[in-house]
Amino acid sequence: MQLSRARVAIDGLGLMGGSLAAALRAQDACREVIGVARRESSLSMAMTLRMIHRGTTDLREGVSEADLVVLCTPVGDILAKLGVIGPWLKKGCVVLDVGSTKSAICQAMERLPEGVQPIGGHPMCGKEASGLSMAEPTLYRDRVFVLAPLERTAPEAVALAEELVRAIGARPLYLEPERHDRIVAAISHLPYLLAVTLVNSAEQLDRQDGDRQDAMLWALAASGFGDTSRVAASSIPMMADILHTNRAPILEAARVAQAELARMIDLLQEDDIEALLPLLSAARDRRRGMNR
Amino acid sequence: MQLSRARVAIDGLGLMGGSLAAALRAQDACREVIGVARRESSLSMAMTLRMIHRGTTDLREGVSEADLVVLCTPVGDILAKLGVIGPWLKKGCVVLDVGSTKSAICQAMERLPEGVQPIGGHPMCGKEASGLSMAEPTLYRDRVFVLAPLERTAPEAVALAEELVRAIGARPLYLEPERHDRIVAAISHLPYLLAVTLVNSAEQLDRQDGDRQDAMLWALAASGFGDTSRVAASSIPMMADILHTNRAPILEAARVAQAELARMIDLLQEDDIEALLPLLSAARDRRRGMNR
Repeated sequence: MQLSRARVAIDGLGLMGGSLAAALRAQDACREVIGVARRESSLSMAMTLRMIHRGTTDLREGVSEADLVVLCTPVGDILAKLGVIGPWLKKGCVVLDVGSTKSAICQAMERLPEGVQPIGGHPMCGKEASGLSMAEPTLYRDRVFVLAPLERTAPEAVALAEELVRAIGARPLYLEPERHDRIVAAISHLPYLLAVTLVNSAEQLDRQDGDRQDAMLWALAASGFGDTSRVAASSIPMMADILHTNRAPILEAARVAQAELARMIDLLQEDDIEALLPLLSAARDRRRGMNR
Repeated sequence: MQLSRARVAIDGLGLMGGSLAAALRAQDACREVIGVARRESSLSMAMTLRMIHRGTTDLREGVSEADLVVLCTPVGDILAKLGVIGPWLKKGCVVLDVGSTKSAICQAMERLPEGVQPIGGHPMCGKEASGLSMAEPTLYRDRVFVLAPLERTAPEAVALAEELVRAIGARPLYLEPERHDRIVAAISHLPYLLAVTLVNSAEQLDRQDGDRQDAMLWALAASGFGDTSRVAASSIPMMADILHTNRAPILEAARVAQAELARMIDLLQEDDIEALLPLLSAARDRRRGMNR
C-alpha cells in the first residue's frame, strides 16, 4: 500500500505523536490521520491545531480501521499496548512505534498475530520539554529515524514505514534492535545518567557549602553547567521505562564511564596533569569533530 | 580614581581580554585601553576592530603606564605574570584578573609590592570557542563577575574594579577565593570532567561495537549527547591550569559525583527502578528550576 492511500492511527499525542501527526497533515501525506489519546482535551487541541482528521479515546476504535498504527507513548506503555491490540488490527496492518529502546519492543512485536506487519522505530530527536503543546511538524526534519524490521516483516510493510519516515523529512536507517540499544545506551542514556549525577552532586556540594541560605552555587551556575545538565530535566516516566528495558547496555555504558572517571580522579589525586592531558585532548578532538 | 580617567592595560587579547577591551571601548568607559599580546597580529586585529587604543607585545611597556591592569590569560600564565610585573607598576595601580580559579591567584597577589592594589576577578561567562576572533563586547552583559579583594586592598581600588565590572554590563559579586573555588569546582569543573568522561566512554563503547567502520555511534549522537558533552571541547591549556590550581575542591566534587554514579549503578544492577525514581525526580526538579 502507498502512504497516500493509508489511514494512519497515532496512539499518544504528546511531543512525538503530535509532531508526527502535524508533519503528516502538513504534507498531506496520507489518506487520514486518526489520533488516539487518553484525554478528550488532547484530541480537541489536536483537532483545533489541524494535526489530526479525527480522534478517539478508545484505542480499539482508533486502530481497528488503520492501515498503519504508530505507537507514540513511553516504552512501557507501548509494550502494554502491543499485548492487547493484536486482535483489533486489520489483516496486513503495519505496526510501527517510536519508543526509545528497541529490543524489548521488537520481542513483543513478535507476539502480534500472524497477519500483522510489525516494525520497530526510533526517531533520533526530542526535547526535554514534552507534551502536545511542544509538538511541531518540523521535529523530525533531517533527523535519523531508525527502523528495525522483524524477520517476518514483509518488504511492502517496510516500504510503507520508510515512506512515512521520508514524508516527515527524516532519514531512515536500518539497525538491529540489539545494536540500536547498545548505541543509544552510549549516546543517549549515559548522558542522562551523567546529567543526573551532575545535578545531584552539585546539590550535595551546595549543602556542604558554608552559607546555604544564599543559594550562591545555583546563582553562579553558568551556561556550561546548563548544557551539561540539560537532559536531567527529561521526563521521568519516559526515562524510567528506558532504564528498565535497556538495563544491561546502560549498565555496561555506566561502568565504562565509572572507570573513565576513576582514572581521571586517580591522576588528579597524584597531580599528574601531564598524564591527564591525552585524555582531555582525545575528548576535545572528538567533541570538536562533532561540530554541533 | 574614576574609571573614565584611568588607563586600562589588558594583558591577553583572547576571548575574555578581547571582549573586555571591546566592551570598554564601546562604552567609552576609560581614558585609554592598552592591549598587550604575544603576537603583533593580535594587536593589529584588535586595532582594526577598534577594541584597543594602542597595543604592545612588551608586557613591561604595557603595564607601566596603567592605572588598572587586567590579566586575561589562562591561570598558569596569570600566576607567572604576577611574579614579574610588580616592579613595573605605578604606585596605586589596581591589578585585576579574570582567571577561572581564585585561591592560587589571590595568594600570588599578596606578594605584589605594597603600593599595588590587587583584586581577584572571575566573570562567569565564556564559550568553548576561544580567541580574539570570537570576542564580542556583549560577552559580559548580565553575567555575574566575581570580585575577590584582598584584606590589603583599599576601598578605592575595589570601587574602581566594580566600576569596570558595571561598565561592561556585568553584575559584581563579592566572594572569598576559597569559597569561589569550591563553588566553581561544582558548577564548572565537574561538568567538564563529566563531559570528558562521556566522550571518552562513548569512544570506548564505539570501539566495542560490532561494525566500527561505519562510525554509527557518532552518526546517531543527537542533541542530548551534544549538550552533555559540549564543554569537553574547552581549551586544554585553560583546563589544565584549572585542574592544577583547583585540585582539592575538584577532587572533592569528582568524588561526590563518583559516589552518586555508583549509587545509581547499584540500583540499576538490582533493577530497583522504584528506588532510582527519587534521585531522578530530584535532579529533574532542580534542573527545571534553573530555567536555562
